[in-house]
Amino acid sequence: MSETSDAQPLQPLIAALRHLPGVGVKTAQRMAFHLMQRDQAGARQLAHALVHALDTVVHCQRCHTFSHQPICPICSDSGRDTARLCVVETPADLAAMERTGAYQGCYFVLMGRISPMDGVGAADIGLAQLLERALDGQVQEVILATSFTTEGEATAHLVAELLRARGLQVTRLARGVPVGSELEYVDLGTIAHALVERR
Amino acid sequence: MSETSDAQPLQPLIAALRHLPGVGVKTAQRMAFHLMQRDQAGARQLAHALVHALDTVVHCQRCHTFSHQPICPICSDSGRDTARLCVVETPADLAAMERTGAYQGCYFVLMGRISPMDGVGAADIGLAQLLERALDGQVQEVILATSFTTEGEATAHLVAELLRARGLQVTRLARGVPVGSELEYVDLGTIAHALVERR
Repeated sequence: MSETSDAQPLQPLIAALRHLPGVGVKTAQRMAFHLMQRDQAGARQLAHALVHALDTVVHCQRCHTFSHQPICPICSDSGRDTARLCVVETPADLAAMERTGAYQGCYFVLMGRISPMDGVGAADIGLAQLLERALDGQVQEVILATSFTTEGEATAHLVAELLRARGLQVTRLARGVPVGSELEYVDLGTIAHALVERR
Repeated sequence: MSETSDAQPLQPLIAALRHLPGVGVKTAQRMAFHLMQRDQAGARQLAHALVHALDTVVHCQRCHTFSHQPICPICSDSGRDTARLCVVETPADLAAMERTGAYQGCYFVLMGRISPMDGVGAADIGLAQLLERALDGQVQEVILATSFTTEGEATAHLVAELLRARGLQVTRLARGVPVGSELEYVDLGTIAHALVERR
């Protein structure tokens, strides 16, 4: 046991906590202290949950989302419309789409978006798998539901190019004024888009 | 396996991550996604570090800080001045004192401070152990090095009352203008204290 680990027995835990996104050394110290001093049961639960997720969660072979089975419940649901494929960035986005209850088609989860700032390029999101999935002979329309941020738009643009080149119909979620918002407080870019795309 | 765990396979991990202080459900989702999608090695390292810390780290029987041994390296160092006992809030504060190189005495780590807002009362910090430690017959001066915040001051006040009632000499770290600061940018309370306690 080294001198350092004796003087700072929580050092390995603090270093490991820094793998969490957005956690610097001060936050990691605070987390380690809290877990060891105030919530050891929570710490053990976290360790078990990590190991359990690592050992049991895989990617669905069709839509690429996280799943306990090789094919996720949505992809194996025979009641879904196989002619429509909705492309989202993350499982959280898929869950948001599902909560609307307005969509009965299938999904493809990119598990990311193109973001040069974070070193995520076109090769790092599942474009090859998406292409294979979209060209299964049943999909007629691909609905792009990536974020309406710079990175999400760039991702949507790239995916659209790729799929249109293969002769697929590609649509994008409508941009516009959010339901329930007062026009006065909506940003100008959104109003401008809503005006151009008025119907 | 329930319907819910199938639809949200990361749910147990997200719930466990919320044991970390300051982590809400959105942050926990982001952390779980990041670990599973981008840093599985880091996730496994974190699980191991948690279990290792829980299984090997104990409180030093004399100073109460985190330690791998029943008596920590500082408490078992025969070169330390046993007549002086410095009371700090956390192991991080102890480490800060050590880094100054200006203190050769012993420590007692409260592992917290009185904070009614967070439900931490006088009974939750190690006052009984501190009293026992301070009355070992060797300690002549107890130096209070709790934070100069409302909670830290309240803690220092309570500890001072308790120890002075037992006839011990109790001192507090000096309040004043931080080294290297320009007076113009120092807050007024600090300047006022520095003026009153001028020497």
